[in-house]
Amino acid sequence: MVKVGIVGASGYVGGEVLRLLLSHGQVEVVSATSRQYAGEYVFKTHPNLKGVTNLQFSADDPLKVASKADVVFLTVPHGLSCKITPKLVETGVRILDMSADFRLKDPHAYEKWYGFTHPAPDLLGKFVYGLPELHRSELKGAKYVAVPGCMSTAAIVSLAPLAKAGLVEKDVIVDAKIGSSGAGGKPSLSTHFSERFGVVRVYKPVAHRHTAEIEQELNYVSGKSVQVGMTAHAVNMVRGILTTSHVMTSSKPEVAMIWKAYRGMYKDEPFVRFIMDKKGLYKYPDPKIAIGSNFADVGFEVDPYVNRIVVFGAIDNLIKGAAGNGVQSMNLMFGFDEKEGLNFPALHPV
Amino acid sequence: MVKVGIVGASGYVGGEVLRLLLSHGQVEVVSATSRQYAGEYVFKTHPNLKGVTNLQFSADDPLKVASKADVVFLTVPHGLSCKITPKLVETGVRILDMSADFRLKDPHAYEKWYGFTHPAPDLLGKFVYGLPELHRSELKGAKYVAVPGCMSTAAIVSLAPLAKAGLVEKDVIVDAKIGSSGAGGKPSLSTHFSERFGVVRVYKPVAHRHTAEIEQELNYVSGKSVQVGMTAHAVNMVRGILTTSHVMTSSKPEVAMIWKAYRGMYKDEPFVRFIMDKKGLYKYPDPKIAIGSNFADVGFEVDPYVNRIVVFGAIDNLIKGAAGNGVQSMNLMFGFDEKEGLNFPALHPV
Amino acid sequence: MVKVGIVGASGYVGGEVLRLLLSHGQVEVVSATSRQYAGEYVFKTHPNLKGVTNLQFSADDPLKVASKADVVFLTVPHGLSCKITPKLVETGVRILDMSADFRLKDPHAYEKWYGFTHPAPDLLGKFVYGLPELHRSELKGAKYVAVPGCMSTAAIVSLAPLAKAGLVEKDVIVDAKIGSSGAGGKPSLSTHFSERFGVVRVYKPVAHRHTAEIEQELNYVSGKSVQVGMTAHAVNMVRGILTTSHVMTSSKPEVAMIWKAYRGMYKDEPFVRFIMDKKGLYKYPDPKIAIGSNFADVGFEVDPYVNRIVVFGAIDNLIKGAAGNGVQSMNLMFGFDEKEGLNFPALHPV
Amino acid sequence: MVKVGIVGASGYVGGEVLRLLLSHGQVEVVSATSRQYAGEYVFKTHPNLKGVTNLQFSADDPLKVASKADVVFLTVPHGLSCKITPKLVETGVRILDMSADFRLKDPHAYEKWYGFTHPAPDLLGKFVYGLPELHRSELKGAKYVAVPGCMSTAAIVSLAPLAKAGLVEKDVIVDAKIGSSGAGGKPSLSTHFSERFGVVRVYKPVAHRHTAEIEQELNYVSGKSVQVGMTAHAVNMVRGILTTSHVMTSSKPEVAMIWKAYRGMYKDEPFVRFIMDKKGLYKYPDPKIAIGSNFADVGFEVDPYVNRIVVFGAIDNLIKGAAGNGVQSMNLMFGFDEKEGLNFPALHPV
Repeated sequence: MVKVGIVGASGYVGGEVLRLLLSHGQVEVVSATSRQYAGEYVFKTHPNLKGVTNLQFSADDPLKVASKADVVFLTVPHGLSCKITPKLVETGVRILDMSADFRLKDPHAYEKWYGFTHPAPDLLGKFVYGLPELHRSELKGAKYVAVPGCMSTAAIVSLAPLAKAGLVEKDVIVDAKIGSSGAGGKPSLSTHFSERFGVVRVYKPVAHRHTAEIEQELNYVSGKSVQVGMTAHAVNMVRGILTTSHVMTSSKPEVAMIWKAYRGMYKDEPFVRFIMDKKGLYKYPDPKIAIGSNFADVGFEVDPYVNRIVVFGAIDNLIKGAAGNGVQSMNLMFGFDEKEGLNFPALHPV
Repeated sequence: MVKVGIVGASGYVGGEVLRLLLSHGQVEVVSATSRQYAGEYVFKTHPNLKGVTNLQFSADDPLKVASKADVVFLTVPHGLSCKITPKLVETGVRILDMSADFRLKDPHAYEKWYGFTHPAPDLLGKFVYGLPELHRSELKGAKYVAVPGCMSTAAIVSLAPLAKAGLVEKDVIVDAKIGSSGAGGKPSLSTHFSERFGVVRVYKPVAHRHTAEIEQELNYVSGKSVQVGMTAHAVNMVRGILTTSHVMTSSKPEVAMIWKAYRGMYKDEPFVRFIMDKKGLYKYPDPKIAIGSNFADVGFEVDPYVNRIVVFGAIDNLIKGAAGNGVQSMNLMFGFDEKEGLNFPALHPV
Repeated sequence: MVKVGIVGASGYVGGEVLRLLLSHGQVEVVSATSRQYAGEYVFKTHPNLKGVTNLQFSADDPLKVASKADVVFLTVPHGLSCKITPKLVETGVRILDMSADFRLKDPHAYEKWYGFTHPAPDLLGKFVYGLPELHRSELKGAKYVAVPGCMSTAAIVSLAPLAKAGLVEKDVIVDAKIGSSGAGGKPSLSTHFSERFGVVRVYKPVAHRHTAEIEQELNYVSGKSVQVGMTAHAVNMVRGILTTSHVMTSSKPEVAMIWKAYRGMYKDEPFVRFIMDKKGLYKYPDPKIAIGSNFADVGFEVDPYVNRIVVFGAIDNLIKGAAGNGVQSMNLMFGFDEKEGLNFPALHPV
Repeated sequence: MVKVGIVGASGYVGGEVLRLLLSHGQVEVVSATSRQYAGEYVFKTHPNLKGVTNLQFSADDPLKVASKADVVFLTVPHGLSCKITPKLVETGVRILDMSADFRLKDPHAYEKWYGFTHPAPDLLGKFVYGLPELHRSELKGAKYVAVPGCMSTAAIVSLAPLAKAGLVEKDVIVDAKIGSSGAGGKPSLSTHFSERFGVVRVYKPVAHRHTAEIEQELNYVSGKSVQVGMTAHAVNMVRGILTTSHVMTSSKPEVAMIWKAYRGMYKDEPFVRFIMDKKGLYKYPDPKIAIGSNFADVGFEVDPYVNRIVVFGAIDNLIKGAAGNGVQSMNLMFGFDEKEGLNFPALHPV
């Protein structure tokens, strides 16, 4: 059994990593840390794990975790991971970083999008962007993986085939809708139920940080320089993301060519589903039918009127948008079956 | 008291027209028709009206209603209104048509967007588009008014100042999010609670019919030919619409100029609010704080990165998006105080 | 115009009092205080009031408010009101206390249910319990009114006719379901959206404080000593309360007698509706159709199997459960039309 | 591999049985029937199964299914199962009936509670009530199992220890709150989203059919004759049930004795959790933390004021309340590990 440590296991992503690893057949959780809850049962914080595990949060510092584990999931806030990671790297432990700190290849991008000077720019090149759909071969055997952001995952997976096929000519508009769990577990006025219920809240109209990784990855697959204008909305649900991307084209887009691009890139992907149906309730991707699963659902429609391809990506933000993508990457790192621990359907209806 | 008839009063829009007119100080409802529920108390269908009125649905045909009333609200489905209206016009009664049948000036647009040949093209020119923010002077004393569609209202009110100021240079993307009440009161699998709860459902990715009136009105204020690509999503709420419009510009947009456009057009509008705040929870329009009111909330943000203005419009789809706009137009038609019967705040929190 | 002051106007109840008074034809708000937000526009805190009023929160202390006003709404927390009130009483100003501090006649009840020794027991007898359905004649011309608690209102209004008719023989079980707004506007982990959404949370299984006033008022109408076992649940909505009361009887209850009890007590009540229908969706009270109104909806069903009357009470907790009841009481205090400022229907659907 | 057939696999319960069996290590689904959807992929109806299985609905009649399978899940409506079952019994196939038709031992109870004369009363005695917590030894090797109703499961599991310990002296009030999925997948006005959203709807104030099985099972464990008064409410969620049971006692209930009753009965149960915590958000059972799992969460509180024990039971109605309980029973029938195919935690937050 591979030994896994989780640094920062008390948040929603940490809880989801725990949940997935506890059912994983090839790994064993040797330490799940929380400074705040050290010594408490993890099920006090993650009530769904009651009856499932009697694991307690440990007070281990990251180096202690590294000394026990073969691989560490870092589920700490942005800006903290890049301080911890250099020390972990010295220990030789493998790392799956759930934060944004090693997703971007260009150190200057951290100044531009995150407002800080990256303290370990030399390490950026050592991390693989943990999206198996784009980086499977690099992930196999990788030592360091930066797991993508939640909205980035939905946007990149749904847009990559178009970008790869050269169909992204101009700017792309990404209009994202996300549930509350993406904002984490810390209460504030903006997450106060009476104020949060029923909203369609524009919480980041422009300059969302995930723009940087979406552009990086679309550039990677297209070999071109794509520009993304992103607008993020919070909607009335806990889990789930839908990204609606508006791709303007210079001529009338051809459906057959687009289908070919999607099939060509994803026909063998274990966790990508094409949601394109002429009838039924789920004609296009909808987070409702991805909740609880590791699937990234993609679909599109061609606008014959304004030369536009509308592209949809739907995921469970805590699974394919975070913990599940991390586990899928870990499976590749260690040569496990890529679907191990992730082979469960969504819940429906829920 | 002006006598009002409502033809087709059993749907959600009809119920909302009734609710508003029952509190209106200058009018009296003389007939509220429903073939299905004729003879029943309106509160059996509109349970919020219990304890408020003992009015019963009448079985009056439209001509009968016209014979009793000074003005008729037509709250019947698209395609039916255009058959009823020519007969009503002959009676001399004033008309507020809540359907789409007289919103478009160009008869060919009905073939293109609605798929039918308009049976009364000569009447199209006689109807005023019932949006006081754009057509107040024409509405004063008007005999025939076509009340705008719900998403159209949010989109047009929020985009018109930009269009008028010449800031809409290229195509406009309208990404709309709407509550369930916009789909009416008739059950179907797509509105079945277990299937509808928690969705972010793309129900009209391209070619939404409201595109036609949005373009018509933006062309009207801008004097240019604007093209709109619209994508409509159903979200997890009953009332409310947010339209997020992405306006691409050829150069970096200037905030001061945009503000000037909005203030110039709307500073005296009784039912337009600018929602633009640096702090607090409601920095941008959100249907949550418009629910229960006749306000159209507008706001914008400039994207310094991809030459884009992001424009937000939020309304209660049944009030400013339908019944309230109708009553506001009626007030102008009859020379009443424009705010009569509409002077109530939104409910918060709800 | 009667001059009204609101001490503590920044909470949800304060906001609702403000909203109602701003549309009230006989009063004028002369001061709405908030220590935290003094000097800010009230619409910054109550976003629904934007476009409705430019009133600002004042920093007035309660005595200053009393010096400007004919009547003061005290919307401060329990335990604070009883410290402020004695000073206000000396000024001669009239008082509507929204807290629990003067609802109970028995000073010992404060020790038992609220855990503190009441500092002004002599004043308890001077306050009228502000429920017009039970205390209308005392409210007419009253100087001091203690406005009932939200769940108490639903329970008392729905149970009083049975109690009055002698049909409450044994203990009564009150199983209450309430929306989030009853818990106020202050964020905490228990109101964090991701944790609060979708719950059916037992937040007070026994010994809810409202028990004391429910018993007091049922004893008042029945002349007997009723004992109430209450269990309170938070459910997935913002506004609304349903109380389901299980009244065990010694013999099979007779429907006709129960109907007579309800009709006899409430047939002329302006804000009580009987919701009892054999068909349709709203056969029994449901907060859904009371939201936005001042109605208290009552209904019942007889259980022929276990000698039980099941009694339902549904209200909008912020209106009939707080601010609306306060305004209705104020109308009686000042001899206004009892319905003034409250004469609006619920919103439906919402 | 044991061969399983599912008769009537297109409903929500059928879909959930399918979902669970597809991940079960000891069985193989050989036929999943649907007259309406025969020949279609099951994922067209159960969209969560897309990417998981390419199984198609079969048109097999029940006897055909029996000829292929070792065991049949009957997920057909009440009243239909009792017509199909006698023929299936002749084939020698094992049966798990998800309907109510074989839950009650007393044939007269069908007349009283379901309004029909049972066509196969002789078979009633051959069925084991499929609740492992009460009937484990009978289930081991059983041929015929009647899987309990959803609300019954929550009520029985939470009340049985009290009944067994002799603490249920008088009538029991069961106040139930349930999500929409319990009403199935067929649209109607009562499930229309705009009318169903936000309700606390009393849909069965008295005489709920599940009363019969709750009484039967509480009588079974207590050896006494218990009477249950049940009131059922629909609340604003898709999955989940909370039953709040009010057990009146003749003297002050003792916490230690109650704890002993629960621990004594359930301390080794694989799918019962005690949710009793002095701090944290989940002090009592709440369906929110059971969703997606096969757990039945139980808890209680003693009311020192009115001699009452308040008992809570929370489940996912489609899993422990239906399909999961069926699979758990099947595991016992066939001697599999009781947790096989059910060993997944709840999702949180969701």
